[in-house]
Amino acid sequence: MANGAVLAPPKVDGVLEAALYADDLVAAKEFYAGKLGFEKILEAPGTFVFFRCSATILLVFNPAQTRKQPLPSAARPVPGHGCDGAGHVCFSAPGASLDRWAEYLGKAGIPIEAEITWDNGARSVYFRDPAGNSLEFAQPRLWGYDEAGVAA
Amino acid sequence: MANGAVLAPPKVDGVLEAALYADDLVAAKEFYAGKLGFEKILEAPGTFVFFRCSATILLVFNPAQTRKQPLPSAARPVPGHGCDGAGHVCFSAPGASLDRWAEYLGKAGIPIEAEITWDNGARSVYFRDPAGNSLEFAQPRLWGYDEAGVAA
Repeated sequence: MANGAVLAPPKVDGVLEAALYADDLVAAKEFYAGKLGFEKILEAPGTFVFFRCSATILLVFNPAQTRKQPLPSAARPVPGHGCDGAGHVCFSAPGASLDRWAEYLGKAGIPIEAEITWDNGARSVYFRDPAGNSLEFAQPRLWGYDEAGVAA
Repeated sequence: MANGAVLAPPKVDGVLEAALYADDLVAAKEFYAGKLGFEKILEAPGTFVFFRCSATILLVFNPAQTRKQPLPSAARPVPGHGCDGAGHVCFSAPGASLDRWAEYLGKAGIPIEAEITWDNGARSVYFRDPAGNSLEFAQPRLWGYDEAGVAA
């Protein structure tokens, strides 16, 4: 540590963007925007598509493009990254929202892979996107947050 | 769609949990808790370690364990997932927090890989965790959120 000074890190704020990877971004867009109703906010065809989720963002990248270092198509030197395999993102589903999502997934023909009730009574619903990523809606009280998603 | 009914998905709330993968969870814990100061909230040694980030959670998984389907060590049938390669998470750094993080990373010996100013004036700072995952602190006004992280 420079100068031997005792350093404390700043307080971390929340996740602003979570990332998933998909080889087929057309299928990803059809799923997240067309089926789940997420608002598409930015897209570079073949490279990425981004969605707004309340006060956070879901990023979906084509790893064949975004693992190049730095991204060749970017106007700025954005560091590369890219994963193979099934990733995971959990979305907050406060209050009765979880039941509405479970009902919606069933009616929209999206298979529910698991429904879990945790030790503290919070519930989760799991399903997959077309790339095989594991998606979850969970009640935020799973982690001690009130049902508005604010730290209790 | 069942019964031909017109279905609208519920409104999506924010990301509750974002996931990264690391083969060495001891190094991940030392980095996220020891260096970045994130609060560790749950751990299964060799399988996962979770951290609280304000009103969201960062999950770090060992993909060799968590891609098993379902997770053999879980008390409940949690669907498996697991990625190889560098993933990405961006944390919200509202107001002066971005400058404090950049200064802290420098003093803590964590290399800053890129600093980017976007078209709308919002700024990002990029660095890596020990597994090579691309981490970012970004001002939430990058996506139109005010500096408290709430949708503007």
